[in-house]
Amino acid sequence: MGGPGSSPCASCKLLRRRCAKDCIFAPYFPPDDPHKFAIVHKVFGASNVSKMLQELPVHQRADAVNSLVFEANARVRDPVYGCVGAISYLQNQVSQLQMQLAVAQAEILCIQMQQEPNLHMMQMQMQMQDPLKQESLWT
Amino acid sequence: MGGPGSSPCASCKLLRRRCAKDCIFAPYFPPDDPHKFAIVHKVFGASNVSKMLQELPVHQRADAVNSLVFEANARVRDPVYGCVGAISYLQNQVSQLQMQLAVAQAEILCIQMQQEPNLHMMQMQMQMQDPLKQESLWT
Repeated sequence: MGGPGSSPCASCKLLRRRCAKDCIFAPYFPPDDPHKFAIVHKVFGASNVSKMLQELPVHQRADAVNSLVFEANARVRDPVYGCVGAISYLQNQVSQLQMQLAVAQAEILCIQMQQEPNLHMMQMQMQMQDPLKQESLWT
Repeated sequence: MGGPGSSPCASCKLLRRRCAKDCIFAPYFPPDDPHKFAIVHKVFGASNVSKMLQELPVHQRADAVNSLVFEANARVRDPVYGCVGAISYLQNQVSQLQMQLAVAQAEILCIQMQQEPNLHMMQMQMQMQDPLKQESLWT
């Protein structure tokens, strides 16, 4: 992290500049992982990443760097959709699972109705006859 | 989209430059929606966006711009996690739904076993006695 004798962080090495003691990148981009900075620089640009980090409190910067690296990797893998491709895929998966769950729950209800048809009919009739329950439907 | 008499696209207007006839931004950033370009410029930088679009065939550029705008909006709303926050939320939702579905399917199996215990026991015994089925377990 800067200082005489120590090697510059991955960012300062790539940008060919002196790594100051208070370099904003140094804690998150160690010199032994040059790809991590190279990819966020390629997608977001060093200047934008620096601005984004400066606007955050120090304790949130590591999470922000990790999410930026994740996003940048996704954009390099899929230059058209990036992260949004993953979101779209997951949204479809959620919809399918919700549908499968609704079908399974309907099947359970159906089996229960077949097993105890009189009980369920009685429950339904009681609900219809109970004036308090009925009132609650309209209020 | 450039040319004398027409107004410059939102990008060239913000960057204060002449909007050429073949401006790469013009088809996707009309002058009546300045926010759309401003937000991708803030997060990715105009130069990076231009490079990303140039590397794509023309028919994929509109999708790429839409996904970049979506990502940039997510990053402005959530400067720490951006799009990755949405991915994490959706992954949790998928896990929960998969668990609920497994419980519902186990419940269905359980009810079916209670309804027809002999049939299910016979099926299980047949599977265990069938040499072909058994062989397929080991091959």
